[in-house]
Amino acid sequence: MPNNYYAVIMAGGGGTRLWPLSRQATPKQMLPLIADSTLFQTALKRLQRVFSPEHVLVVTNQQQAARLQEQAPELKPENFLLEPQPRGTAAAIGLAAAYLQAHDPGAVMAVLTADHYIGNEAEFERYLLAARQLAEQGHLVTLGIEPSYAATQFGYIQLGAALAEVDGYTAYKAQRFKEKPAAAEAETMLAEGGYAWNSGMFIWQAARIWQEFQRHMPELHEALEKISAAWDQADFATVLAHEWPRIAAQTIDYGVMEQAADVAVIPARDMAWNDVGSWSSLFEVLEVDASGNLILSERHLDIDSRNVLIHSNGQERMVVTVGVENMVVVDTGDVLLICSKERAQDLRKVIELLKEKGLQQYL
Amino acid sequence: MPNNYYAVIMAGGGGTRLWPLSRQATPKQMLPLIADSTLFQTALKRLQRVFSPEHVLVVTNQQQAARLQEQAPELKPENFLLEPQPRGTAAAIGLAAAYLQAHDPGAVMAVLTADHYIGNEAEFERYLLAARQLAEQGHLVTLGIEPSYAATQFGYIQLGAALAEVDGYTAYKAQRFKEKPAAAEAETMLAEGGYAWNSGMFIWQAARIWQEFQRHMPELHEALEKISAAWDQADFATVLAHEWPRIAAQTIDYGVMEQAADVAVIPARDMAWNDVGSWSSLFEVLEVDASGNLILSERHLDIDSRNVLIHSNGQERMVVTVGVENMVVVDTGDVLLICSKERAQDLRKVIELLKEKGLQQYL
Repeated sequence: MPNNYYAVIMAGGGGTRLWPLSRQATPKQMLPLIADSTLFQTALKRLQRVFSPEHVLVVTNQQQAARLQEQAPELKPENFLLEPQPRGTAAAIGLAAAYLQAHDPGAVMAVLTADHYIGNEAEFERYLLAARQLAEQGHLVTLGIEPSYAATQFGYIQLGAALAEVDGYTAYKAQRFKEKPAAAEAETMLAEGGYAWNSGMFIWQAARIWQEFQRHMPELHEALEKISAAWDQADFATVLAHEWPRIAAQTIDYGVMEQAADVAVIPARDMAWNDVGSWSSLFEVLEVDASGNLILSERHLDIDSRNVLIHSNGQERMVVTVGVENMVVVDTGDVLLICSKERAQDLRKVIELLKEKGLQQYL
Repeated sequence: MPNNYYAVIMAGGGGTRLWPLSRQATPKQMLPLIADSTLFQTALKRLQRVFSPEHVLVVTNQQQAARLQEQAPELKPENFLLEPQPRGTAAAIGLAAAYLQAHDPGAVMAVLTADHYIGNEAEFERYLLAARQLAEQGHLVTLGIEPSYAATQFGYIQLGAALAEVDGYTAYKAQRFKEKPAAAEAETMLAEGGYAWNSGMFIWQAARIWQEFQRHMPELHEALEKISAAWDQADFATVLAHEWPRIAAQTIDYGVMEQAADVAVIPARDMAWNDVGSWSSLFEVLEVDASGNLILSERHLDIDSRNVLIHSNGQERMVVTVGVENMVVVDTGDVLLICSKERAQDLRKVIELLKEKGLQQYL
């Protein structure tokens, strides 16, 4: 196959679900949560199986670009595509498509995340290669995740008829995109079967998504055409600065995927995928000790605690737990969070409270 | 009555039950736990009702004396009696008795604690005055505390026959001293009635306890005789330094009270006494908020927590609790303790662990 396959890493997000460790200045992908390297670095590393560094694009923003570049010296500065302002995932993907339309119009692009965990990288590689074949045939491919429980924090894709068999994987027609369900609905979908979680990973020809933008998001397409035409030109910055702010913020799911006729889903299993979307998710991806505790602290003493996560940045600081159960403790120096493991989703209420009270320094 | 009544405050103790706030360098009595003033200052203040500053003696050690003097500028330096080394409560009380034998042989001394809470100070005053009358009659008087629950952290005194009626209070013969009981035994004593907690508060003539030392602790008495004789003499320091280290460490309970024939107990009630002996005891003496929380922290945000104690010294540090219940959180900067409220007594295990691991800096 020609060397026309590109990874597009979406790395501009904020996210507060791992607050107080993830902050406006240091979002999740910049944190060494799972390993000594950051989630972004881990994402880059697993992509080496499929993509050369020249074929890895990172869509991010001005604020984060410098630190991401520090973390990825193997990538050239021009591979970082900077959004002047956040305009949703459709525009972010559009920016990468515009780059590829200008530089390699026959490109197939794999839109991937910077802040998810993938335990089985060999399996991930196989999915990427199978999806590429489908994308070469003109499909808009998305990697779904086979549900393992009745999650309410993900969107779902209902699987339709089988479309194709590639490298032993079956791809299905995406029948319907469903937004994050209520608990009862999630239970029903899990029981019925025939659904996949929407992982936000997409594989398609740059030219195909371009067509879809033209069809379903014509204003975005128009802006992207101008941006793509100006790429590497003297007036690129001016064009980008002019066009970008006028783009309406929209997600790729709502803007394209739910409208498009030909979306193929490959439901991925055995990939050990995890969105690391909450403190409690770390219990799923990291190895707990004999008491079920996850101790991410240099100095810790415990008596009879269970299912406790301790994350402390203070190296000289001694954390002591006695008889604590099902609790998340995160100590960043300026903030000490103590949160019931079952209530991790309520961190958004904390963020709201901090905003209400004007305590920006803790965001 | 002649002005022969003295308060002897025992303020040399260490104690780790309020660790990590109470430390070797800052034991409980030096902490502003209940109010803006320290427990020691609060103790001094309530004694003003009965004693002039000249009649308040503080028994402590070299390490703590300077800081206690700072906290009590109204006391003269010579009113601080310094133990060269800790030798138990019998010797500490003996040192005060030796001072009084030398300076005011007709003295009545009230041995009192520096680190307990007494909510009803007017009632405390009445007990002190009633006990003085009994002491003037030659009794060894102890203030007992009427048990309100089956406590296992206190010694008990079994009440015998009524001895006297003073100011409306009944004093009983102390039938038997019992050490800290197991839970079942404590339940039995509470159900049977006729017991008082041993508060460690004693009122007697200095000359009477001197007799008791002579009878039951002759070696201590001999050393104290020499110390008393040398008081205010040029060789006092030499005598003290020579005699003191040879004293065998012993408690007043074991050394005298359990042996003495004539011990009178006044069981005190309505004094709102609390030994502030654990973090959970603070819930009894301080006012909790509507959720049962005790927030002793400058900056705190909460969502749905109950029966939580938060103590944080860090003024810029934001403490956030989400769905936490029955928990004690103490943050001293170098240590973060998170302890189930029911497990507060296990702090001694933490102290042992720290010692085992050679982590002296946290003690």
